[in-house]
Amino acid sequence: MKQILLIGIGAGDPEQITVQAINALNRARVFFLLDKGYADDDLLRLRTDICQRYIRNDEYRLVQVRDPQREDDPQGYARGIEHWHEQRAVLFERLIADELQEGEVGAFLVWGDPALYDSTIRILDQVLESGREVFEYQVIPGITSVQALVARHRIPLNRIGEPIRITTGRRLADMARDEPENVVVMLDAHCTFERFVDQGLDIYWGAYLGTPDEMVLSGRLDESLCAQIKRLRHEARSRKGWIMDTYLLRKPL
Amino acid sequence: MKQILLIGIGAGDPEQITVQAINALNRARVFFLLDKGYADDDLLRLRTDICQRYIRNDEYRLVQVRDPQREDDPQGYARGIEHWHEQRAVLFERLIADELQEGEVGAFLVWGDPALYDSTIRILDQVLESGREVFEYQVIPGITSVQALVARHRIPLNRIGEPIRITTGRRLADMARDEPENVVVMLDAHCTFERFVDQGLDIYWGAYLGTPDEMVLSGRLDESLCAQIKRLRHEARSRKGWIMDTYLLRKPL
Repeated sequence: MKQILLIGIGAGDPEQITVQAINALNRARVFFLLDKGYADDDLLRLRTDICQRYIRNDEYRLVQVRDPQREDDPQGYARGIEHWHEQRAVLFERLIADELQEGEVGAFLVWGDPALYDSTIRILDQVLESGREVFEYQVIPGITSVQALVARHRIPLNRIGEPIRITTGRRLADMARDEPENVVVMLDAHCTFERFVDQGLDIYWGAYLGTPDEMVLSGRLDESLCAQIKRLRHEARSRKGWIMDTYLLRKPL
Repeated sequence: MKQILLIGIGAGDPEQITVQAINALNRARVFFLLDKGYADDDLLRLRTDICQRYIRNDEYRLVQVRDPQREDDPQGYARGIEHWHEQRAVLFERLIADELQEGEVGAFLVWGDPALYDSTIRILDQVLESGREVFEYQVIPGITSVQALVARHRIPLNRIGEPIRITTGRRLADMARDEPENVVVMLDAHCTFERFVDQGLDIYWGAYLGTPDEMVLSGRLDESLCAQIKRLRHEARSRKGWIMDTYLLRKPL
């Protein structure tokens, strides 16, 4: 049977990859790499670097395809994502059908952990449900940017017995101003933390964690720190063309 | 200066350790191992196995000490934990003072990730604050049992755009019955999921994840599945003397 490995490769630091992931890289023969069509694609290069660094044979091949573009749907956010996933499912099914022989092992490399804000598990399940392609797949966890963030700041995610919430910028915007207790925010393109300035919260922010471009800032979230993060973020994004950042908001004791 | 490495070693599978953690293991010369005083300490053995498996020199030594016992405090849970941490801070300070030379590198091996429901960061900060010992420390993230759980069940932690809550059995007990949307529960010795039977939730449960004793169960959380998990859990705990388990509760779409 065809086999697919969904490999979490960590948040950016090539040393934050597990032995299990390296062994999986060495079992795969075909790597499916989705690119966004940028001329200078750092994220694509980081993934091919990981293959070169850790794969101990030269019998593998890279299959690079353009990721379907996500478009805003007039019927709302969820519908836009669903439509994007459908297009990706069509693409993944074609890749598995055309590029993978019976008995061969293919792999998708996923930033962070395939279980956290990534759609590959969901899309492979969709392809399996359609019943046209038969394959097995396995998920290999990876260090997330959340973990890279707090390790870099040397803080625990939670304090004694406290719960943690991991959410998106979109959901944070809907939270009451005094609600965040321990909130980790991912996928926030709109600096939603600005809503929480001067609410007595601490912020621990990081971008490009584990890479040479890593930036971190932390402190009481006031006007000045908010402006500083926004400026750093804007400059870096303009310079590099993309940004991956995440942050923790916490009520100090 | 003295250096301490706080190394996340994953949830049980010795292959779920990162290259960064292995490099850290190889930089350390002294490993502080806390034991619980059991005659047959699997958790201690798993840690010494990791040292033997990944350290490429024989210049390191293990310093094994008894972990202070946590006692219930009549003034409440938080006070009991605080008291335990104070005793641990005294112990850690003594270990760093007596067992580590200037310029030497010491290490604590932590199950999962040092940032998630672990007190070592907090305790090292307490030791530093006391000002009697001077040292630097670094945190190396590890794969948590939460990640091992969902990878094993091949499910995403969150569905599209949904938040995730990570909490304790103690906190889950305080939640309204219809509240859990995506809740991961750790440190639940009392099978608190029983409160949520027949509330239309799915449970994804796992124990000893990544080890030869691994057990997983999942499905609609009804009387029968609840009883099955409780029975498995009880039998395993009696047989082995300890259990590490975790679960995700989720409202199906």
